[in-house]
Amino acid sequence: MHVLVTGAAGMIGRKLAERLGRDGVLNGTAITKLTLTDIVAPKQPAGFSGEVLLPVADLAAYGAAETLLAGRPDVIFHIAGIVSAEAERDFDKGWRVNFDGTRALLEAIRSIGDGYRPKFVFTSSVAVFGGPFPETIGDDFHLTPHTSYGTQKAMCEHMLADYCRRGFLDSVGLRLPAITVRPEPTAKAASAFFSAIIRDPLAGLEAVLPVPDSVLQTHASPRAAVGFLVHAAGLAPEQLGPRINLTMPGVCCTIAEQIEALRRVAGDPAVALIRRETDPMIARIVGGWPHRFDPQRALTLGFTAESSFDEIIRTHIEDELGGSVGRSPARVPVGHGT
Amino acid sequence: MHVLVTGAAGMIGRKLAERLGRDGVLNGTAITKLTLTDIVAPKQPAGFSGEVLLPVADLAAYGAAETLLAGRPDVIFHIAGIVSAEAERDFDKGWRVNFDGTRALLEAIRSIGDGYRPKFVFTSSVAVFGGPFPETIGDDFHLTPHTSYGTQKAMCEHMLADYCRRGFLDSVGLRLPAITVRPEPTAKAASAFFSAIIRDPLAGLEAVLPVPDSVLQTHASPRAAVGFLVHAAGLAPEQLGPRINLTMPGVCCTIAEQIEALRRVAGDPAVALIRRETDPMIARIVGGWPHRFDPQRALTLGFTAESSFDEIIRTHIEDELGGSVGRSPARVPVGHGT
Repeated sequence: MHVLVTGAAGMIGRKLAERLGRDGVLNGTAITKLTLTDIVAPKQPAGFSGEVLLPVADLAAYGAAETLLAGRPDVIFHIAGIVSAEAERDFDKGWRVNFDGTRALLEAIRSIGDGYRPKFVFTSSVAVFGGPFPETIGDDFHLTPHTSYGTQKAMCEHMLADYCRRGFLDSVGLRLPAITVRPEPTAKAASAFFSAIIRDPLAGLEAVLPVPDSVLQTHASPRAAVGFLVHAAGLAPEQLGPRINLTMPGVCCTIAEQIEALRRVAGDPAVALIRRETDPMIARIVGGWPHRFDPQRALTLGFTAESSFDEIIRTHIEDELGGSVGRSPARVPVGHGT
Repeated sequence: MHVLVTGAAGMIGRKLAERLGRDGVLNGTAITKLTLTDIVAPKQPAGFSGEVLLPVADLAAYGAAETLLAGRPDVIFHIAGIVSAEAERDFDKGWRVNFDGTRALLEAIRSIGDGYRPKFVFTSSVAVFGGPFPETIGDDFHLTPHTSYGTQKAMCEHMLADYCRRGFLDSVGLRLPAITVRPEPTAKAASAFFSAIIRDPLAGLEAVLPVPDSVLQTHASPRAAVGFLVHAAGLAPEQLGPRINLTMPGVCCTIAEQIEALRRVAGDPAVALIRRETDPMIARIVGGWPHRFDPQRALTLGFTAESSFDEIIRTHIEDELGGSVGRSPARVPVGHGT
């Protein structure tokens, strides 16, 4: 089996490539070839014995998608894209990368035209939703994004569904919730603090919290996000039906609940490193995001995320910190830290 | 005021141009110039004293949109597009005309870039909805089209909202229900019979009904559709907010109710001209369409359609048949025809 990952130098793409390399199989079939592409060179995944190609490519550039597709990958994970803040700042770039790049890939698949029909897994985002919201966003709530990024993702979802319906590919679109704890700082993202207030205190560093404790958000770990992608690749078209775009599950909690989870896992000293410094602009942006979902279809189809924010923190400690907290005293019971 | 109408040779475009020409004003401002464009030459509207341009243009062709926009229209009615069946048969043409043509127009507006910000009214369609449906489709039901046409319309809605949010134009997207009674046959459309079973008997001609009497559909007259467009052009951005795409109102009734309305308006002889001849393929296509809507936002914003199917038939008689029915005896009371 030949697997293509776009955006393979990004955080999720890299972790997916690592997992595929480590597993060596996908849907019970051995992976013989991995093509990992991005606009900068992706890393070689450790421990993979099959063939690895690491082409540097800009999908929206003329002919780039056709060249990538020449190897006829059986499964395509399309993760490439620029983030919300960048797509908002640079209108042309957002449309070019997030929309035209995806369209070029779909057109390259269609143009092969000899019955080639790969499995195509697309990372969409809960940014496709825009307020006003009901208390809980169900699977049939409409998409009215408030950002160009969300618009581009929503349009790609539609396009993907039509190409799927027409038989050019078998596709699934996954609306990812906030991915927390991100292992590296993402300074430009308004959502950066959701991860920073956990990651940095666990590393003995101060973190700034720019929004009130009451802010609600739905989170899944990077490991869970990779799990969504792998699980999606194994779904049969009959299981999905025509509605191929799915809101993924996650842990819905307030900032206060995130902080209490941090206290349970790493004690008061970690929590003491969170400094409150309100940023009205970030508070306004985050306040406009969707908070809570009822992803019935994804749950029925077997997608799973963490069941508590404590588990999300422990996943981070296992995957990024070698299983134990560095400078902070790990596992100090609630209320007994110093 | 300079008004541009795309698709001006089509049924709705022609009727809109006629109304604009007749009214001579839009939103209380005199229309000094009408640019009517289509891929074939539109007709000169009768009785209009201002300047009229009738350029033949393919919006998706390189530079065509820029040329059209050079005259900086104050209001743009974007009606151009190919119909559902054609977009389904010719995948490339559907994407090119319905999607790329719209995008080219939006990009041409944006590229002017000196604060030019026209009012842009777009005709979308209830084909943006795809089953399974709730009994009534509310304003926040998601878009999961089952056709390429519906997909292209849904994507244009999203794109339109983003260009509006970014301040490049002030836009409204109108999801039109079935437009009935269409004055001319539309042989290629699966929906043709909804109009034919009224129009043809009123003209003394036989009409074939290919679906069961129980089929439910929401209808508005061509006159009401033109009314939606004109009303939309008068809405202020503050009235609309960010959710600029609206489901239009209409009369929801079964085929049986359509036929009873025909009987009330034109008597048993007209009804006797309807011949039942089931076409399973048409029945299947029509069965997949959305039937009933609760267009609260449009109603609140002052959009109005007919209040009964009788009124839709009378509108047809007034607008197309000079106010009276030709060969059929008009206004024969129910049950007293021959």
